[in-house]
Amino acid sequence: MKTYLDCIPCFLKQALKVSRLITDDEVLQEQIIQQVIKLIGQLDFTQTPPAIAEKVYELISTLTKCADPYFDIKKDSNRMAMDFYPKMKELIKTSSNPLETAIRLAIAGNIIDFGAGIDANREIIQNSIEDSLQYNIPQPILDRLQSSITKAKNILYIGDNAGEIVFDKLLIEELLPKKITYVVRGKPIINDITLTDAIETGMNDLVQVIENGSGASGTILEDCSPEFIQHYNDADLIIAKGQGNYETLDREGKGIFFLLKVKCPIVAQSTNCKMGSSIIVEK
Amino acid sequence: MKTYLDCIPCFLKQALKVSRLITDDEVLQEQIIQQVIKLIGQLDFTQTPPAIAEKVYELISTLTKCADPYFDIKKDSNRMAMDFYPKMKELIKTSSNPLETAIRLAIAGNIIDFGAGIDANREIIQNSIEDSLQYNIPQPILDRLQSSITKAKNILYIGDNAGEIVFDKLLIEELLPKKITYVVRGKPIINDITLTDAIETGMNDLVQVIENGSGASGTILEDCSPEFIQHYNDADLIIAKGQGNYETLDREGKGIFFLLKVKCPIVAQSTNCKMGSSIIVEK
Repeated sequence: MKTYLDCIPCFLKQALKVSRLITDDEVLQEQIIQQVIKLIGQLDFTQTPPAIAEKVYELISTLTKCADPYFDIKKDSNRMAMDFYPKMKELIKTSSNPLETAIRLAIAGNIIDFGAGIDANREIIQNSIEDSLQYNIPQPILDRLQSSITKAKNILYIGDNAGEIVFDKLLIEELLPKKITYVVRGKPIINDITLTDAIETGMNDLVQVIENGSGASGTILEDCSPEFIQHYNDADLIIAKGQGNYETLDREGKGIFFLLKVKCPIVAQSTNCKMGSSIIVEK
Repeated sequence: MKTYLDCIPCFLKQALKVSRLITDDEVLQEQIIQQVIKLIGQLDFTQTPPAIAEKVYELISTLTKCADPYFDIKKDSNRMAMDFYPKMKELIKTSSNPLETAIRLAIAGNIIDFGAGIDANREIIQNSIEDSLQYNIPQPILDRLQSSITKAKNILYIGDNAGEIVFDKLLIEELLPKKITYVVRGKPIINDITLTDAIETGMNDLVQVIENGSGASGTILEDCSPEFIQHYNDADLIIAKGQGNYETLDREGKGIFFLLKVKCPIVAQSTNCKMGSSIIVEK
């Protein structure tokens, strides 16, 4: 997905949010924003939003020498999501269609997205769970995903955010004992998952976890490591979580299943779905 | 009120909105936004938000040779508000406190503010009326305004937006036969009122209407005409409508009564009121 002009105010909002997370010094915050404005004025908007966002966050990291501003928030999100785990596991176990319930929960977890301006707390997560469980996801796409899962031998599961990874774990447990590779980002950006989150939530005890070699809040193939590309090419089913992966992989034509909550008007427009929708897109 | 860093994404949103109003050409829209980004990168944020916004809108007008992008919208708003007039007049007539009802309706009309990202339609206006009529405005400030009105001999009423001017008319009709001067902007900006709107809505048949000599969406005293300043100094009561007037006059210490709907988080913070509040501030 290309960057729309509507994304520009959003980049600035995100820059301001992360600046305030890093420092209380309003002078420094203003200096950061001034630099971000200069940078945005020089960028090529034919790139995807995560490609632009990466440059914005990189600049802020360089200016503030803070490599991982969302470190504490990611830890909190993992902890919060793990608190929800037993109840969700029970929901899946007692469901008449455990796989579908696990898919719906994996989508629900995508609400934990600090880049999209939602500061997910317990209440927001609980609402997202309730909403996704009953959301009107069209039966044909649910059937196609479930039948693709049944046929698949080698699944690449591209994760998205801290906390959300716990919801992914529930779905992955339903997919086992198939061969599954779970992908995390190569470097910290926003509240996106890195290897640290995979270790913290025990994802690495469940399946192979690989880094994609890039620091974008999505999957920019040309920036990814050869190891990731090998897995990407070898997989017979790719599941990708969240807006960032959708924005960067929607034009690859790989038949990827994107599982996400629609949290911005531009993604809403691109997917032809309402804000707040729980959706599966095959592209 | 100074400009906060949070205002910057909002300026860009407004710039995008007005660009789309002026042209469907996405290339031109992008050129405009690029120029606006460059301009914002050079501005002094110690100025008030309307001072910055004026430069942004001026740049867009120059680039597009469109001096009044909200021309049609303003006409529509005046027409829509005039449709509400008879019902509102009746509400005032039958009220146990006609002056308070007229004050509340004047505040309700401030919902018609295209700079604040609200595209007011009939439903939004109707809801604003209902809300402002029952909104919990503290009695002491209502009393102070009403007693100031009773005492005043020379009232300066600084208007804000098209459509809203009809709501102001209802309040002004309750203030007559006192000497009242109604102020409009000196040039078109956003959906702010100019002399055209005063003529269209018959405000100029009711009271003296003057331009303030400036093209800002507020009242920047140093940019206003000597005629306006004379009226400003001579008035024994000043009523100023809307966020823009509040943002530019809140530090003048004139004991101005600001009547507004709180439509942005920064004004909410500055006034210590919730978003959506109907408020009177004396400063």
